[in-house]
Amino acid sequence: MFDNSDRTELSQLGEFGLIQHLTQHFENQQKSTLLGVGDDAALIKMGSKIAVWSTDIMLEGVHFDLSYTPLKHLGFKAIATNVSDVCAMNGKATQVLVSVALSNRFSLEAIEELYLGMKIACDKYQVDLVGGDTSTSRSGLVINVTVLGEVDSKNITKRSGAKPGDLLVVSGDLGGAYMGLQILEREKKVFIDHPSMQPDLEPYDYIVGRQLKPEARVDIIETLNELGIVPTSMMDISDGVASEVFHLGKASKVGFDVYENKLPIDSQTMETAMTFNLNPSIVALNGGEDYELLMTMDQKHYDQLKNHMDFTIIGHATAMEGKHRLHTNAGNVFDIKAQGWQHFKQEEK
Amino acid sequence: MFDNSDRTELSQLGEFGLIQHLTQHFENQQKSTLLGVGDDAALIKMGSKIAVWSTDIMLEGVHFDLSYTPLKHLGFKAIATNVSDVCAMNGKATQVLVSVALSNRFSLEAIEELYLGMKIACDKYQVDLVGGDTSTSRSGLVINVTVLGEVDSKNITKRSGAKPGDLLVVSGDLGGAYMGLQILEREKKVFIDHPSMQPDLEPYDYIVGRQLKPEARVDIIETLNELGIVPTSMMDISDGVASEVFHLGKASKVGFDVYENKLPIDSQTMETAMTFNLNPSIVALNGGEDYELLMTMDQKHYDQLKNHMDFTIIGHATAMEGKHRLHTNAGNVFDIKAQGWQHFKQEEK
Repeated sequence: MFDNSDRTELSQLGEFGLIQHLTQHFENQQKSTLLGVGDDAALIKMGSKIAVWSTDIMLEGVHFDLSYTPLKHLGFKAIATNVSDVCAMNGKATQVLVSVALSNRFSLEAIEELYLGMKIACDKYQVDLVGGDTSTSRSGLVINVTVLGEVDSKNITKRSGAKPGDLLVVSGDLGGAYMGLQILEREKKVFIDHPSMQPDLEPYDYIVGRQLKPEARVDIIETLNELGIVPTSMMDISDGVASEVFHLGKASKVGFDVYENKLPIDSQTMETAMTFNLNPSIVALNGGEDYELLMTMDQKHYDQLKNHMDFTIIGHATAMEGKHRLHTNAGNVFDIKAQGWQHFKQEEK
Repeated sequence: MFDNSDRTELSQLGEFGLIQHLTQHFENQQKSTLLGVGDDAALIKMGSKIAVWSTDIMLEGVHFDLSYTPLKHLGFKAIATNVSDVCAMNGKATQVLVSVALSNRFSLEAIEELYLGMKIACDKYQVDLVGGDTSTSRSGLVINVTVLGEVDSKNITKRSGAKPGDLLVVSGDLGGAYMGLQILEREKKVFIDHPSMQPDLEPYDYIVGRQLKPEARVDIIETLNELGIVPTSMMDISDGVASEVFHLGKASKVGFDVYENKLPIDSQTMETAMTFNLNPSIVALNGGEDYELLMTMDQKHYDQLKNHMDFTIIGHATAMEGKHRLHTNAGNVFDIKAQGWQHFKQEEK
């Protein structure tokens, strides 16, 4: 079935190149399709409303490790990360569909924990679970969540729309989820070598929580609304700022200047990074899964934002399309390289 | 992590029981949620429109076997079966989201075949592929498709709504996809024993096509509209009529009488069943994956349907809730047992 004579390895394209490549010949035929492939979510016109629509797949051994991920947290995260995609369009999530494939290794009680986590997230974000699919799996757990939401037409915020001179703004702090993952991986190794030792994760509660149970920033969408700010572009940070600026830059045809001394880093992230001999700024730029929002805004909003506790201005857009630079504390200027998750390169054969 | 002290095996519930059990504590909070878990699709009010929304997950080794399933056919089927779910609500599919997880075993060219099949289906059913997710997988191929569509409020057809005396009607013919699967499995065994032998599938083209490349019956939805018929209940047949009457019966609080001599069976299905020493009526009742539509209609439509080539009246609803009976050619009456796919029971540990 698989003809190897003209074989191109998936790793030659990477994840983003692959999606673009595979969908390039699909043409939209429905008038209701306002925005298709290439943003955080699709936009569909439904009567007077605009639906926001997105999906994410999570696989055991790729996106999560059940040896240290409680199923309840995993259920919460599966919903929260999808709600985050709707936030990234400046919309409000309303419903989810959940597909789960699992093997007989899981008991009913284990799966109840997974759904309990989903229910906690659904209650918190006020989204209804309205359907889904359940199947057996020959190997690990697979979770696919699809989210539906709404956005007012005047609030629609795509990845395109940033203009040179716009402020580059991030919510919350960066790199915590990545350092939380390093702690969990380290404690897993300790546990394998010394099964009787119980890990003490309390000193790392914030960053471990950032990894295991990230929040969707629906509060930021509400705050933007209260401030009367519609960002010129926005996306959520799943793969790290250094990767995401390339997406915003490509869609908006701009470049970005980012200032190292502006990167918001929590003290626990900072200290843990140093324990691991990692540069906290590199962690903040390249660490994934923070699910914070990365936005651009007109400069007129500077005074509203400069002392706001939920937002940090980390740089600005430039007219140099595709040129993204980091201005370091030492006064140097480096080109930023995209180092987001490259699934197909990491994978072991 | 998994406490076995109170362990309930998933097989004790089966697939349908599992979904109901896991979602029982979820309460809908959004006014826009018109219909949640338990039908072929969810219904969401979006302004003046009603969105139809459904998802299906397909896993290699569970739902398909790549040793005899061309990836192009698989891509087509993944889209068609989702479009079929929208048909089952008497609606029209408009957009899809596709998540695919795959291992490095697949070349880019192989995945292009999968997406080519999806594109053929999208063109045929006039649905737009508007987004999705792509990930690596440690084992086989996983495909999750989510479909969005629309339905006029006057046309909404749920599983509930059948009344005693309503006609039980099926589109197309039954059991073909199941017999196609038997042929493919037989030829696979022959090929394993004698790799130099090429299978001759031509005598089985119809039933093999029913299995590998089923169609969504959008034409039936159009015909119903032209005839001015709104079924009182409807669903698509993915698990076999014998299983589906239980779903319609439970949702509508009715029973069904089914007549063996009315079951529509194609001659190729009939002949192949007899070659395999299978009773064609049992195949028609229990074979899954035909993706035909099972409907109930008011008796007033009898004259419109009785000689219509697209519809077959196979029985009627009764007031005996949950009691489903087969009237055989020999004049006997048997209780129908649900024998749909029981994923969690079939699975090998």
